[in-house]
Amino acid sequence: MALVVQKFGGTSMGSIDRIVNRVAQKVISEKKKGNDVVVVVSAMAGETDRLINLVKSITEEPNERDMDFVVSTGEQVSAGLLSIALNNLGFPAVALSGWQAGIRTDRAFTKARILSINTDKIKEYLNEGKIVVITGFQGITENGEVTTLGRGGSDTSAVAIAAALNADRCDIYTDVDGVYTADPRIVPDARRIPVLSYEEMLELASLGAKVLQIRSVEFAMKYRVPLRVRSTFAEDEGTLIKEEDETMERVIVRGIAHNKNEARITVERVPDKPGIAAKIFDALADANIPVDMIVQNVSVDGFTDISFTVEKNDASKAERITKKVAEEIGARGVIRDDKIAKVSIVGLGMRSHAGVAGKVFETLAKYGINILMISTSEIKISCIIDEKFTELAVRVLHEAFELDKDEKERALI
Amino acid sequence: MALVVQKFGGTSMGSIDRIVNRVAQKVISEKKKGNDVVVVVSAMAGETDRLINLVKSITEEPNERDMDFVVSTGEQVSAGLLSIALNNLGFPAVALSGWQAGIRTDRAFTKARILSINTDKIKEYLNEGKIVVITGFQGITENGEVTTLGRGGSDTSAVAIAAALNADRCDIYTDVDGVYTADPRIVPDARRIPVLSYEEMLELASLGAKVLQIRSVEFAMKYRVPLRVRSTFAEDEGTLIKEEDETMERVIVRGIAHNKNEARITVERVPDKPGIAAKIFDALADANIPVDMIVQNVSVDGFTDISFTVEKNDASKAERITKKVAEEIGARGVIRDDKIAKVSIVGLGMRSHAGVAGKVFETLAKYGINILMISTSEIKISCIIDEKFTELAVRVLHEAFELDKDEKERALI
Repeated sequence: MALVVQKFGGTSMGSIDRIVNRVAQKVISEKKKGNDVVVVVSAMAGETDRLINLVKSITEEPNERDMDFVVSTGEQVSAGLLSIALNNLGFPAVALSGWQAGIRTDRAFTKARILSINTDKIKEYLNEGKIVVITGFQGITENGEVTTLGRGGSDTSAVAIAAALNADRCDIYTDVDGVYTADPRIVPDARRIPVLSYEEMLELASLGAKVLQIRSVEFAMKYRVPLRVRSTFAEDEGTLIKEEDETMERVIVRGIAHNKNEARITVERVPDKPGIAAKIFDALADANIPVDMIVQNVSVDGFTDISFTVEKNDASKAERITKKVAEEIGARGVIRDDKIAKVSIVGLGMRSHAGVAGKVFETLAKYGINILMISTSEIKISCIIDEKFTELAVRVLHEAFELDKDEKERALI
Repeated sequence: MALVVQKFGGTSMGSIDRIVNRVAQKVISEKKKGNDVVVVVSAMAGETDRLINLVKSITEEPNERDMDFVVSTGEQVSAGLLSIALNNLGFPAVALSGWQAGIRTDRAFTKARILSINTDKIKEYLNEGKIVVITGFQGITENGEVTTLGRGGSDTSAVAIAAALNADRCDIYTDVDGVYTADPRIVPDARRIPVLSYEEMLELASLGAKVLQIRSVEFAMKYRVPLRVRSTFAEDEGTLIKEEDETMERVIVRGIAHNKNEARITVERVPDKPGIAAKIFDALADANIPVDMIVQNVSVDGFTDISFTVEKNDASKAERITKKVAEEIGARGVIRDDKIAKVSIVGLGMRSHAGVAGKVFETLAKYGINILMISTSEIKISCIIDEKFTELAVRVLHEAFELDKDEKERALI
């Protein structure tokens, strides 16, 4: 007998029909296997927005404590409805709110973090043979105040509950049936990835972001909770995200991610002296602007160029700050480029296989795609390219690494 | 400085506009007088029904525990919204749910009764100078489960909180401006009653039922909480309901209530032996049918007639049961009459003034209204009459006792 945590999002819980005919059936099917089942639910699609709009029609800057007090009711309704449906179908169930389930958080209203989970009550109901339905997205402070975890927080609730209960598996049910080798809207013959490691999932964030809150993957990695992404509306195994094992390195490239949401800033002719780079990035950090890739080349005649990327939203602020620092340090100038994209290939197998980078560069060159920046980690190669080549780059890399084939049938470079 | 509890019903909380421009203003006006203010709110009009309909679209017989879990969210939303509005207007406030406010109830889901209130948290916030907004209609069991108190339960919540806090006053804000000497739809010159006793209010239930949950008046009487019924949408003092004092007996008739919602059942020619009446009323009690008036006349030749009234809803069931008992005890038969009405005059002054009953009978006779049954208490005279005379009876009694005049200007019979 296993203990399984299932999480259903707002689309899955979107109507009474879906709750009764889709979600409850998935829960019952797991229970019928003889497993203990804990279910974590989001609010019905649209409900959280309805509540936020009610609040915003009073003031654009509401008291955040009371905001959470109001918005947290969405999950209470959906959890109660699912429990009612399960009981009605003959499967004893009980609904618990965040505070009833013992989910303790800090006091950062609207974006609280889970501190601990007291699982006594959950276990008590499981021991009675009940299915336990818990509201996602929320918790309670030490002082008994209701908090919410921020958008997508139900994934984190589910993983945290799975970790606290030492669950055998955490199934994230959603409206897609898994994580793919590339965005299927760009690459029609992208394949569902059957198994991948937490590290690969984090690097493939832009593929998973539509499916999973990234914080929940970090949480799952930290507590070694196997995550399965699967569809509420279909019957299949989805994608399993788990700890790396020896079989995983056999696949060189697991998937291809792309991101059009960054801008590049270049500081030209920077005097190559110790502490210069720090001046730029300290200034950005002070302004709370996260920097993604940083590239600095060897210097010529005591000068160098430094390039980095930031989120497009932050680009104009970052440009302003960088220009100020550039003047102070005597650089020639600052160039900003918003028309870029990042394409990344990800796979644990790169560690043990040479020639992957060469093949990436060769493939892009063959199609006339110029590489503007390169950044690599042990399991990832990211290239910044001109934004207009994004889809082409994803497609030709997908083909070059044979990602349209079953993992076992791919050539080893 | 006083401590005032204010209660606002669903109509008062019916829209963001009303919450911000009516309710919040009433709260602030009380706070500005230097008082400590605790506010108890119902769900926004229509919201509780919306939630019940969601549940009922799954099953007509939902698990009641989960039903309460869902339905209780209506007040959480409205309480949060009012607190947000107050904070936004510059008056520090905090919203508390039933469980946060320490409202302990029994486990009778959907119709729970309040057992105790731990006021620590409420007092803590009051001491910080905050307005405390509490969800009506709900509480928590010893085991941490959410309960609701049944329709109209927010009145009871407000009175119970006022009692537990030893509040100076509990103001029930609603869409009428007080309790009237008669239903103003029948008697256009009915007057608002400025002050009356709990006992009078309970006897005038049919006047107050549209305004106050009767259980809340019993609660207020038990704990001696002065209640004031007043309008959210007007500026006046409303009606004060409080403990009897020596000035109250000066008014002979406080008001006239009527009730068309009863039916009369008569058992004819009942053998007048001990225990016969018990047989009838035990059978009705076993079937959970409440009996209102009971009249039995002196017997003639060892036989008597017994009449009683029940709610119209229960009439056909009561008739069936009574017929069965009538056969067993050898009575002649059972007659049922649904076309009756009860008209009652109520006033503490009746105790010390003779001639009130005579004046009632004389007035009704003068207009050809036949009295079918009479029942009296110390402070009430009720007559059962033919239903078609209801409005006429109320009007002529209102006139006879000069209830259209100020209390001080009325003749003493």
